Amino acid sequence: MSDDRPFDFSILDRIGAPYRHFEAGEKIFLEEDPGDTMYMVRSGRVDIITYGIVLENVQTGGIFGEMALIDDGPRSAAAMAAEPTEVVAIDKPAFLAVVRDDPQFALRVMSLLATRLRRANKQM
Amino acid sequence: MSDDRPFDFSILDRIGAPYRHFEAGEKIFLEEDPGDTMYMVRSGRVDIITYGIVLENVQTGGIFGEMALIDDGPRSAAAMAAEPTEVVAIDKPAFLAVVRDDPQFALRVMSLLATRLRRANKQM
Repeated sequence: MSDDRPFDFSILDRIGAPYRHFEAGEKIFLEEDPGDTMYMVRSGRVDIITYGIVLENVQTGGIFGEMALIDDGPRSAAAMAAEPTEVVAIDKPAFLAVVRDDPQFALRVMSLLATRLRRANKQM
Repeated sequence: MSDDRPFDFSILDRIGAPYRHFEAGEKIFLEEDPGDTMYMVRSGRVDIITYGIVLENVQTGGIFGEMALIDDGPRSAAAMAAEPTEVVAIDKPAFLAVVRDDPQFALRVMSLLATRLRRANKQM
Protein backbone atom coordinates (compact mmCIF):
# COMPACT_ATOMS: atom_id res chain seq x y z
CA MET A 1 0.00 0.00 0.00
CA SER A 2 1.70 3.20 -1.16
CA ASP A 3 0.86 6.84 -0.46
CA ASP A 4 1.85 7.61 -4.02
CA ARG A 5 -0.73 5.52 -5.84
CA PRO A 6 -3.15 7.54 -7.98
CA PHE A 7 -6.30 8.59 -6.15
CA ASP A 8 -9.38 6.54 -6.96
CA PHE A 9 -11.98 9.17 -7.91
CA SER A 10 -14.81 6.61 -7.92
CA ILE A 11 -15.51 7.19 -4.22
CA LEU A 12 -16.13 10.89 -4.95
CA ASP A 13 -18.45 9.91 -7.79
CA ARG A 14 -20.34 7.48 -5.55
CA ILE A 15 -20.99 10.09 -2.87
CA GLY A 16 -21.99 12.64 -5.50
CA ALA A 17 -19.24 15.19 -4.80
CA PRO A 18 -19.88 18.09 -7.21
CA TYR A 19 -17.54 18.84 -10.10
CA ARG A 20 -16.77 22.39 -11.18
CA HIS A 21 -15.21 23.49 -14.43
CA PHE A 22 -12.97 26.56 -14.81
CA GLU A 23 -11.43 28.20 -17.85
CA ALA A 24 -7.76 29.21 -17.92
CA GLY A 25 -7.31 32.31 -15.77
CA GLU A 26 -10.62 31.89 -13.98
CA LYS A 27 -10.52 32.25 -10.20
CA ILE A 28 -11.65 29.34 -8.03
CA PHE A 29 -11.47 31.37 -4.84
CA LEU A 30 -9.75 34.56 -3.69
CA GLU A 31 -7.63 35.24 -0.62
CA GLU A 32 -9.94 36.15 2.29
CA ASP A 33 -12.95 34.42 0.70
CA PRO A 34 -14.91 32.39 3.25
CA GLY A 35 -14.60 28.66 2.59
CA ASP A 36 -15.78 25.32 3.92
CA THR A 37 -14.64 23.14 1.02
CA MET A 38 -11.35 21.73 -0.18
CA TYR A 39 -10.81 20.77 -3.81
CA MET A 40 -9.12 17.99 -5.72
CA VAL A 41 -7.91 18.61 -9.28
CA ARG A 42 -9.57 16.11 -11.59
CA SER A 43 -7.91 17.46 -14.73
CA GLY A 44 -5.96 20.59 -15.60
CA ARG A 45 -3.80 22.68 -13.31
CA VAL A 46 -4.39 25.19 -10.51
CA ASP A 47 -2.10 28.00 -9.36
CA ILE A 48 -2.09 28.89 -5.66
CA ILE A 49 -1.34 32.58 -5.44
CA THR A 50 -0.62 35.03 -2.66
CA TYR A 51 0.54 38.65 -3.00
CA GLY A 52 0.61 38.05 -6.77
CA ILE A 53 3.18 35.24 -6.47
CA VAL A 54 2.44 31.66 -7.57
CA LEU A 55 3.31 29.59 -4.51
CA GLU A 56 2.38 26.27 -5.94
CA ASN A 57 1.07 24.49 -8.98
CA VAL A 58 -1.48 21.81 -8.18
CA GLN A 59 -1.78 19.04 -10.77
CA THR A 60 -4.29 16.26 -11.40
CA GLY A 61 -4.94 14.32 -8.18
CA GLY A 62 -3.57 17.23 -6.10
CA ILE A 63 -5.52 18.88 -3.30
CA PHE A 64 -5.88 22.50 -2.25
CA GLY A 65 -7.97 24.53 0.20
CA GLU A 66 -7.61 21.82 2.87
CA MET A 67 -7.53 24.29 5.81
CA ALA A 68 -11.28 24.77 5.25
CA LEU A 69 -11.86 21.33 6.74
CA ILE A 70 -10.27 22.42 10.02
CA ASP A 71 -11.29 25.99 10.66
CA ASP A 72 -13.90 28.26 9.20
CA GLY A 73 -11.42 31.05 8.60
CA PRO A 74 -10.99 32.89 5.31
CA ARG A 75 -8.83 31.47 2.50
CA SER A 76 -5.14 32.15 3.10
CA ALA A 77 -4.32 32.27 -0.62
CA ALA A 78 -6.14 32.54 -3.96
CA ALA A 79 -6.63 29.62 -6.37
CA MET A 80 -6.85 30.13 -10.13
CA ALA A 81 -7.18 27.69 -13.02
CA ALA A 82 -3.91 27.80 -15.02
CA GLU A 83 -5.57 25.98 -17.94
CA PRO A 84 -9.05 24.52 -18.55
CA THR A 85 -9.53 22.67 -15.28
CA GLU A 86 -12.02 20.43 -13.58
CA VAL A 87 -12.04 20.20 -9.78
CA VAL A 88 -14.10 18.14 -7.34
CA ALA A 89 -15.42 19.94 -4.26
CA ILE A 90 -14.88 18.02 -1.01
CA ASP A 91 -16.70 19.40 2.02
CA LYS A 92 -16.46 17.96 5.53
CA PRO A 93 -19.09 15.21 5.06
CA ALA A 94 -17.45 14.19 1.76
CA PHE A 95 -14.02 14.15 3.42
CA LEU A 96 -15.33 11.88 6.17
CA ALA A 97 -16.84 9.53 3.57
CA VAL A 98 -13.58 9.38 1.58
CA VAL A 99 -11.50 8.75 4.71
CA ARG A 100 -13.78 5.94 5.81
CA ASP A 101 -13.30 4.33 2.39
CA ASP A 102 -9.58 5.08 2.11
CA PRO A 103 -7.92 6.03 5.45
CA GLN A 104 -4.58 6.71 3.69
CA PHE A 105 -6.29 9.78 2.25
CA ALA A 106 -6.23 11.32 5.75
CA LEU A 107 -2.45 10.91 5.95
CA ARG A 108 -2.08 12.44 2.51
CA VAL A 109 -4.09 15.52 3.48
CA MET A 110 -2.22 15.76 6.82
CA SER A 111 1.10 15.68 5.02
CA LEU A 112 0.04 18.45 2.61
CA LEU A 113 -1.29 20.48 5.51
CA ALA A 114 2.04 20.21 7.34
CA THR A 115 4.00 21.23 4.24
CA ARG A 116 1.80 24.24 3.52
CA LEU A 117 1.62 25.45 7.10
CA ARG A 118 5.41 25.32 7.37
CA ARG A 119 5.78 27.26 4.15
CA ALA A 120 3.10 29.80 5.07
CA ASN A 121 4.69 30.47 8.43
CA LYS A 122 8.16 30.87 6.92
CA GLN A 123 6.80 33.66 4.75
CA MET A 124 5.32 35.63 7.62
CA MET B 1 -22.04 14.30 15.69
CA SER B 2 -19.66 16.51 17.63
CA ASP B 3 -15.85 16.79 17.45
CA ASP B 4 -15.86 17.27 21.20
CA ARG B 5 -17.37 13.97 22.23
CA PRO B 6 -15.06 11.81 24.32
CA PHE B 7 -12.89 9.45 22.32
CA ASP B 8 -14.07 5.82 22.31
CA PHE B 9 -10.97 3.88 23.37
CA SER B 10 -12.57 0.54 22.51
CA ILE B 11 -11.32 0.69 18.91
CA LEU B 12 -7.74 0.94 20.23
CA ASP B 13 -8.37 -2.03 22.51
CA ARG B 14 -9.83 -4.05 19.63
CA ILE B 15 -6.80 -3.51 17.40
CA GLY B 16 -4.46 -4.27 20.30
CA ALA B 17 -2.74 -0.85 20.45
CA PRO B 18 -0.16 -1.14 23.25
CA TYR B 19 -0.52 0.75 26.55
CA ARG B 20 2.48 2.20 28.35
CA HIS B 21 2.62 3.39 31.94
CA PHE B 22 4.84 6.25 33.14
CA GLU B 23 5.53 7.57 36.62
CA ALA B 24 5.44 11.31 37.42
CA GLY B 25 8.54 12.95 35.92
CA GLU B 26 9.33 10.02 33.64
CA LYS B 27 10.15 10.91 30.05
CA ILE B 28 8.02 9.44 27.25
CA PHE B 29 10.33 10.72 24.54
CA LEU B 30 13.02 13.39 24.24
CA GLU B 31 13.48 16.13 21.66
CA GLU B 32 15.41 14.71 18.69
CA ASP B 33 14.42 11.11 19.50
CA PRO B 34 13.42 9.19 16.38
CA GLY B 35 9.70 8.39 16.37
CA ASP B 36 7.05 6.64 14.30
CA THR B 37 4.27 6.64 16.87
CA MET B 38 1.82 9.16 18.23
CA TYR B 39 0.25 8.78 21.68
CA MET B 40 -3.12 9.30 23.26
CA VAL B 41 -3.40 9.97 27.00
CA ARG B 42 -5.61 7.31 28.58
CA SER B 43 -5.24 8.68 32.10
CA GLY B 44 -2.95 11.18 33.79
CA ARG B 45 -1.27 14.19 32.23
CA VAL B 46 1.67 14.80 29.87
CA ASP B 47 3.83 17.91 29.58
CA ILE B 48 5.17 18.81 26.14
CA ILE B 49 8.49 20.54 26.70
CA THR B 50 11.00 22.36 24.53
CA TYR B 51 14.04 24.35 25.71
CA GLY B 52 12.94 23.57 29.26
CA ILE B 53 9.58 25.33 28.80
CA VAL B 54 6.25 23.51 29.12
CA LEU B 55 4.44 24.33 25.87
CA GLU B 56 1.37 22.32 26.55
CA ASN B 57 -0.37 20.07 28.99
CA VAL B 58 -2.05 17.09 27.38
CA GLN B 59 -4.96 15.62 29.34
CA THR B 60 -6.97 12.41 29.12
CA GLY B 61 -8.15 11.86 25.55
CA GLY B 62 -5.51 14.28 24.22
CA ILE B 63 -2.99 13.38 21.55
CA PHE B 64 0.70 14.17 21.13
CA GLY B 65 3.56 13.15 18.84
CA GLU B 66 1.26 13.27 15.79
CA MET B 67 3.97 14.54 13.39
CA ALA B 68 5.44 11.00 13.51
CA LEU B 69 2.54 9.82 11.35
CA ILE B 70 3.58 12.21 8.57
CA ASP B 71 7.34 12.31 8.47
CA ASP B 72 10.03 10.14 9.96
CA GLY B 73 11.88 13.13 11.37
CA PRO B 74 13.05 13.40 14.99
CA ARG B 75 10.72 14.57 17.78
CA SER B 76 10.38 18.35 17.80
CA ALA B 77 9.73 18.49 21.55
CA ALA B 78 10.02 16.24 24.60
CA ALA B 79 7.07 14.58 26.36
CA MET B 80 7.11 13.83 30.08
CA ALA B 81 4.49 12.37 32.41
CA ALA B 82 3.39 15.12 34.80
CA GLU B 83 1.74 12.55 37.11
CA PRO B 84 1.27 8.77 36.96
CA THR B 85 0.09 8.41 33.37
CA GLU B 86 -1.08 5.77 30.96
CA VAL B 87 -0.77 6.37 27.22
CA VAL B 88 -1.77 4.32 24.18
CA ALA B 89 0.75 4.09 21.34
CA ILE B 90 -0.80 4.70 17.89
CA ASP B 91 1.46 3.89 14.95
CA LYS B 92 0.51 4.37 11.30
CA PRO B 93 -1.41 1.07 10.88
CA ALA B 94 -3.30 1.76 14.13
CA PHE B 95 -4.11 5.31 12.99
CA LEU B 96 -5.51 3.98 9.72
CA ALA B 97 -7.65 1.46 11.61
CA VAL B 98 -8.99 4.14 13.96
CA VAL B 99 -9.77 6.53 11.09
CA ARG B 100 -11.63 3.83 9.18
CA ASP B 101 -13.75 3.23 12.28
CA ASP B 102 -14.15 6.92 13.21
CA PRO B 103 -13.28 9.34 10.36
CA GLN B 104 -13.83 12.36 12.65
CA PHE B 105 -10.62 11.28 14.38
CA ALA B 106 -8.70 12.37 11.26
CA LEU B 107 -10.14 15.90 11.52
CA ARG B 108 -9.27 16.02 15.20
CA VAL B 109 -5.63 15.09 14.52
CA MET B 110 -5.49 17.54 11.58
CA SER B 111 -6.76 20.33 13.78
CA LEU B 112 -4.17 19.61 16.47
CA LEU B 113 -1.46 19.41 13.84
CA ALA B 114 -2.42 22.82 12.46
CA THR B 115 -2.45 24.39 15.92
CA ARG B 116 0.93 22.95 16.88
CA LEU B 117 2.63 23.76 13.59
CA ARG B 118 1.45 27.36 13.83
CA ARG B 119 2.76 27.65 17.36
CA ALA B 120 6.06 25.93 16.56
CA ASN B 121 6.69 28.21 13.61
CA LYS B 122 5.88 31.32 15.63
CA GLN B 123 8.64 30.39 18.05
CA MET B 124 11.33 30.01 15.40
